[in-house]
Amino acid sequence: MNSAETARWLEERDNFLILTHRRPDGDTLGSAAGLCQALREAGKNAFMLENPETTGQYRPYVEEYPAVLEFVPENVVAVDVAAEDMLQINGERFFGRIDLCIDHHPSNTLYARENCIDHKRAACGEIIFEILRELGRKISPRTATLLYIAVSTDTGCFRYGNTDANTLRVASMLVLAGAPNGKINKELFRTKSKGRIALEGRILSGIELIMDGKVAVAAVSVAAMDEASATEDDTDDIANLPGQLEGVIIGVTIREMKDGTCKISVRGTPETDANAICGRLGGGGHKMAAGCTVEGDLSEARERIIEAIRLGTPL
Amino acid sequence: MNSAETARWLEERDNFLILTHRRPDGDTLGSAAGLCQALREAGKNAFMLENPETTGQYRPYVEEYPAVLEFVPENVVAVDVAAEDMLQINGERFFGRIDLCIDHHPSNTLYARENCIDHKRAACGEIIFEILRELGRKISPRTATLLYIAVSTDTGCFRYGNTDANTLRVASMLVLAGAPNGKINKELFRTKSKGRIALEGRILSGIELIMDGKVAVAAVSVAAMDEASATEDDTDDIANLPGQLEGVIIGVTIREMKDGTCKISVRGTPETDANAICGRLGGGGHKMAAGCTVEGDLSEARERIIEAIRLGTPL
Repeated sequence: MNSAETARWLEERDNFLILTHRRPDGDTLGSAAGLCQALREAGKNAFMLENPETTGQYRPYVEEYPAVLEFVPENVVAVDVAAEDMLQINGERFFGRIDLCIDHHPSNTLYARENCIDHKRAACGEIIFEILRELGRKISPRTATLLYIAVSTDTGCFRYGNTDANTLRVASMLVLAGAPNGKINKELFRTKSKGRIALEGRILSGIELIMDGKVAVAAVSVAAMDEASATEDDTDDIANLPGQLEGVIIGVTIREMKDGTCKISVRGTPETDANAICGRLGGGGHKMAAGCTVEGDLSEARERIIEAIRLGTPL
Repeated sequence: MNSAETARWLEERDNFLILTHRRPDGDTLGSAAGLCQALREAGKNAFMLENPETTGQYRPYVEEYPAVLEFVPENVVAVDVAAEDMLQINGERFFGRIDLCIDHHPSNTLYARENCIDHKRAACGEIIFEILRELGRKISPRTATLLYIAVSTDTGCFRYGNTDANTLRVASMLVLAGAPNGKINKELFRTKSKGRIALEGRILSGIELIMDGKVAVAAVSVAAMDEASATEDDTDDIANLPGQLEGVIIGVTIREMKDGTCKISVRGTPETDANAICGRLGGGGHKMAAGCTVEGDLSEARERIIEAIRLGTPL
């Protein structure tokens, strides 16, 4: 469905439960909460399924949306969720039961009954914005704030390569509608916790350059996390650190997990394909930003991702 | 004059020489070059007065605009220059001879004959954009690129508190007009040298929190610079690193110099006075950003600046 059809679909229905993706970021949470808020303003019953992995910086913005016990959902909506197994960790009971998916991932598996997918959009929040405009209602300051969080976080506050004229246009209209962009930017992009600063220090000090300096690899061990007193919140967005290095076209961040696996994040440039690289290891995402999880320790994960890069990147 | 009047003023004249400010940033250079380019496209003779302090990252964008020897200017325009003594270091011969000033600084002294000042704008580039729209000509990709540099650099790529709906709207239209925002953002905001990354790693790993976590101190020794293979260029802006820490209201960076002195930079928040703190040690600057140089090694410098902070900051 396009955004106009999706708006009509929402208009004709009620009692929405909105789901986000696991390890939720600002885009899935802001998009879901923004949609929830706007549906409520339109007189609908709408709730989010509380996402237990919601990190501290987003909690104050989404805390009024989780479903109350007595709520019986009629329509289940997944937002910014590319595949069913990416649904929030407590969302398993909705496998096969998603009525509508609104998403921007090219890798979306079309698992929902109805799909509103626009992979040209940098953030899912841009699609939600378009749908709300089609609903014909004024965007409230509260909704604007949530959608601004969505759009700004998925684009690194408009710095990443996915930012286009539409992203900036939507952001402008959200600020005009009352989103306190200065406050949100300070909170989300210009403040770092002690653990985050220590973790960044460790990561930056240990970046390894390979393949003629075209690929930068950062490894984050469980021990490094402990030494930095870093929490899950502190790891947000660390995948972008190695790619900052001059001359680097692929930035790789490998994070050792406690369960014997490693999470690998790949960040690329227009001439690379992060989605294809991670696809070789069973993962996926976008062309410029993708990820995968592999069995083994940091050095095994390093070997596997380097091999995947060698296989398909014209370096 | 407002932007429409300024457009008419430009339309009625020819042979423009455009001046920028000393220690030129992206806003003064991008605004001046963008105006120059647009005036040329409108069939005018327009040149910039070459600014000898132009730094490497901006040079490729402005190199085709400096005045040729035989050019005789009829109208001298200063762009983003708040006061005559802020004019580029080779601009002294134009003191008292500026015909038009286009600027956004609230402190503008109205030194020019005609003034187009709008201090509500985050970047001077936004005012230039408005004037060009009033000229009624299509913004070319080249002009859009230059104005995008202006608008993005003065707002920290839309992260700083000065960014408003107009900034984002103008940025959106510039991208639509062909400004390669992804490329520019990567160059100006997302690329760091190897030395810089290593230096940042060291600084972030070693930040010390004192005075109940309200003050963060980073020390940069000569040895640390050597170990990171960092050059002078790599130290640009490092004074802002400690102030990012959550809860910190004063960020202090102490840099050991080879001559037995230390350079201290202080970054504050609206409730502090960096200028007063550094003033106690013979330095100065602005309320939110100041500096001083003291005799002695890192630990002596640390003692002295901490004492200066204790003396006058309500912590």
